[in-house]
Amino acid sequence: MSHPLFEKHRALLERAVEAIRGRGYWSPYSENPKSYGENAIEEGRAAFSAYFDAQFYLDQPGVAGRVMSESSPFGLTLDIAYPQCNPDALIAAAKGAMPAWIKAGPDARAGVCLEILARLGAHTMEIAHAVMHTTGQSFMMAFQSGGPHAQDRGLEAVALAWREMKEVPETALWEKPQGKNAPLVLEKSFTVVPRGVALLLGSATSPTWNGYPALFASLATGNPVIVKPHPSAILPLAITVAVVRQTLKEAGFDANLVSLLVDDSGTPVAKEVAQKPDVRLIDLAGRADYVEWFDDNARQARVFAERAGVNCVVIESTADYKAMLRNLAVTLSLYSAQTSSTPQTLLVSSEGVKTPAGTHSAEQFGRDLSVAISALLEDNARAVEVLGAIQSTDTVTRIDAVREQGAERGVILRDSSPIPHPQWPQARVHTPLLVQIDVADRQIYAEECFGPISFVVETATVSEALAVAERIAREKGALTFTVHSTNPVIQQLAEEAAMRAGVALSLNLTGGLFVSQSAAFSDYQGTGANPASSASLVDSDFAAARFFVLQTRRHVVAAQ
Amino acid sequence: MSHPLFEKHRALLERAVEAIRGRGYWSPYSENPKSYGENAIEEGRAAFSAYFDAQFYLDQPGVAGRVMSESSPFGLTLDIAYPQCNPDALIAAAKGAMPAWIKAGPDARAGVCLEILARLGAHTMEIAHAVMHTTGQSFMMAFQSGGPHAQDRGLEAVALAWREMKEVPETALWEKPQGKNAPLVLEKSFTVVPRGVALLLGSATSPTWNGYPALFASLATGNPVIVKPHPSAILPLAITVAVVRQTLKEAGFDANLVSLLVDDSGTPVAKEVAQKPDVRLIDLAGRADYVEWFDDNARQARVFAERAGVNCVVIESTADYKAMLRNLAVTLSLYSAQTSSTPQTLLVSSEGVKTPAGTHSAEQFGRDLSVAISALLEDNARAVEVLGAIQSTDTVTRIDAVREQGAERGVILRDSSPIPHPQWPQARVHTPLLVQIDVADRQIYAEECFGPISFVVETATVSEALAVAERIAREKGALTFTVHSTNPVIQQLAEEAAMRAGVALSLNLTGGLFVSQSAAFSDYQGTGANPASSASLVDSDFAAARFFVLQTRRHVVAAQ
Repeated sequence: MSHPLFEKHRALLERAVEAIRGRGYWSPYSENPKSYGENAIEEGRAAFSAYFDAQFYLDQPGVAGRVMSESSPFGLTLDIAYPQCNPDALIAAAKGAMPAWIKAGPDARAGVCLEILARLGAHTMEIAHAVMHTTGQSFMMAFQSGGPHAQDRGLEAVALAWREMKEVPETALWEKPQGKNAPLVLEKSFTVVPRGVALLLGSATSPTWNGYPALFASLATGNPVIVKPHPSAILPLAITVAVVRQTLKEAGFDANLVSLLVDDSGTPVAKEVAQKPDVRLIDLAGRADYVEWFDDNARQARVFAERAGVNCVVIESTADYKAMLRNLAVTLSLYSAQTSSTPQTLLVSSEGVKTPAGTHSAEQFGRDLSVAISALLEDNARAVEVLGAIQSTDTVTRIDAVREQGAERGVILRDSSPIPHPQWPQARVHTPLLVQIDVADRQIYAEECFGPISFVVETATVSEALAVAERIAREKGALTFTVHSTNPVIQQLAEEAAMRAGVALSLNLTGGLFVSQSAAFSDYQGTGANPASSASLVDSDFAAARFFVLQTRRHVVAAQ
Repeated sequence: MSHPLFEKHRALLERAVEAIRGRGYWSPYSENPKSYGENAIEEGRAAFSAYFDAQFYLDQPGVAGRVMSESSPFGLTLDIAYPQCNPDALIAAAKGAMPAWIKAGPDARAGVCLEILARLGAHTMEIAHAVMHTTGQSFMMAFQSGGPHAQDRGLEAVALAWREMKEVPETALWEKPQGKNAPLVLEKSFTVVPRGVALLLGSATSPTWNGYPALFASLATGNPVIVKPHPSAILPLAITVAVVRQTLKEAGFDANLVSLLVDDSGTPVAKEVAQKPDVRLIDLAGRADYVEWFDDNARQARVFAERAGVNCVVIESTADYKAMLRNLAVTLSLYSAQTSSTPQTLLVSSEGVKTPAGTHSAEQFGRDLSVAISALLEDNARAVEVLGAIQSTDTVTRIDAVREQGAERGVILRDSSPIPHPQWPQARVHTPLLVQIDVADRQIYAEECFGPISFVVETATVSEALAVAERIAREKGALTFTVHSTNPVIQQLAEEAAMRAGVALSLNLTGGLFVSQSAAFSDYQGTGANPASSASLVDSDFAAARFFVLQTRRHVVAAQ
């Protein structure tokens, strides 16, 4: 009765549900490259290179042409030509594939999803190279974040969806006593049905990590998924879609449950497809005005969005000034701050930063942080592993613009400069820009400046610092809020401000965890409670909103 | 540590969660009036009468005047003056009440909600009379549906919300191994936080049954609730709000977590309040265009709506023709079909209705149904107990309009007529109108005609009947779909049509259960999958969409 793939992966699925319930550390996927085999990295590179200068094969309906739009931030020439399909053909094929997928039920769908994840695991290194050369992430980050961590997030989504679906029984006998008369008896059956066709708009910077939760939550709950990658980061999702389609086919399902839709930046298709009546779920991440367009115009769909925001840090006191500076330096440098959870605005009161060795002024803190960043990035070979490359040339333009503003209205604490990459001479690598700016210049530090750009802002008091951070989170949105304070009263005030602003709080990160990092099965990425996100990876609503329950009840004549 | 009200009601709460999981018959509240005490009905009437011609007392902020707007469908003079409060004052008070309610946590909130339900239980008979004389329901229906069944739905919502919230642990220790180095250790805490202020727009026909799920789902998940009853059915919700406020106060919480907002039909406030930025949840039921306004204009809020639709019945064959006719006759007469789940359009193919005693033509079926309705309503004293009174004079106007259309374009199978109420001489009681209409006249039978109006439509084939029903459900929305067929192939086709249309299916109801009835803990009312509803009473999403999870994580220096 039970689907063989469900039985195969059942123990893992149940363990994942348990992990979500406990929210301690857990991951079934290794983040140690060595555990993938002696030559895994090299073999992955070979598999990755095989796609170059060729047509990417996908057996999809409605192929109308080919698109080639990626250019690597590391300067590698990819020249991969993806099949360009008619969106209506993909939607029609997706709809045709639905009934059998619905009928398969939650267990079989979860089993197939876990088989897909297992097979993606076997492609981890190939996907790692693809993530690296499309997003600009360093190899190690592309491997960990784009491989095991993304798979964690996918598994988490399947487990959550399965848990929610399994709360609905398949059948029930409803027997209502009628006093002296025979009871009223009805047989009922309940079917989990999907919302409709899902559209996943891929991220340019974290295509797999950001995309897997939606892909798997939608698929597990019965929705076919059209994957539309960002034109600059197609390959990681194209490989993913190919693996998904192959697994579906081998499991006896229609491969068109998941398809790839590509476009280039000249003729974007996302907005057109998002308005199709059959598209009922949209997952995306992007700039506020881009996301708003979907909220306003794709009204037939439920939109799960992560928008850009402005993340703040308030520094009041620390038990370990050096460790705090190092943690902040790494945080602001990691992947050149090209994640929506990296802090941008650091607030210090004029009372300074209290440390065991005395109080440091805001100005001193700015200089010390600047030195810590420079120390971290001193060695080019090491620096490029931390910084990666800049994904979009817009970010380089933005650095230049803020530098100009900063010089005019504030103080450049640390200038950004291009540095050479020992291995990839054409790589776009730029060190972080750190600017001290007046608290009155909200139009600078309280507006999102995506990329390696951050501001040190001095406030009159700690309360003002917390209030500024709270207001920014409420108005502009924030995915993270970091506070350094050894004072329980300030910690309490910070927790209250975080609650009002609907943002997750990280206190006193001075070790090897950086605030921009979010662990599956434990951390919620985004809350839905401020403008930075209308979804949380991965909460109950993220899964439960993707399906309906249909019931059939029939009268049963009771035996007398 | 644990809240005393949680401990007091814990066993009931856990039993309710179990009932939802099994979806068999269960209810902790009696639908037998006798179990409420020897003189309970009379005592309830006395308590109800005490409100007449007086000011309804509520200790709310911002009282600006008094509103008196109810007129009973049974002709009773109520003259109850409710305090009219400034919406901004209610919102401000609601917001002020939130932090302590959030902090109390899921267990305490669930405990308080269950205490509220217990106390509402003690007011059942008083509320029953209030429901009767504002909605037009007969006393027995007002008692069962407005009392124990409404409380069932409230308890179901609390249990579901509690289950979803309890999936989030309060704390976790996250300990990630770092090879030979000390592990990374973080302490995490998770808090369920509400979406914001909830606005509940009460129904004119089922104020408690329809309102309790939203009231309790919102409150249990931490949201304050502003209850805005329909101007014609204030008292049942006013009594409810008074009980809620008293219970909150005695439990040490701010009574302003739940408040009553009244208006009259001359100066409605719902739309104005729905657009306030602090209002983040709206629950309502109403006509399609009314609901659409909120979808389009209250964009800051999540809207859970039940819209009007057109419910169909397809009759192909039956094992018990008489029992089927009787079931349909009761269904079309119960509360004069003033529920959104009552069928309106009955489809029979030209092949007729197959029965053990031979086949009856569509025309014959129409006549037989007409006779069955007339037999049911032969005795006035009995008829008024089934029919109740007509809630809105618009419905009487609608009966007249459809009679005219019917006479012109079809055949009046059974005319509607006013009948006298033995006890309430001024009651608006009208028997059902049944019209045979051509399948080409979609503009008549496929448009919603709320009230005791139904159509018999002959189609060429059974397939056409199913197709018409499916299309109506998809386009106009439907909460129920009824099919009578003993043929497994037709049953299968019906199930597939129901799935495509996103509507719940009831097969062969020939006993004491009527399709417009929906039992808590077992039946889902609405699916969210067709235009008739954007919410389901009560599924996971109904609860999970009302809260966010905020986390705080802090670095812990690991012991070496």
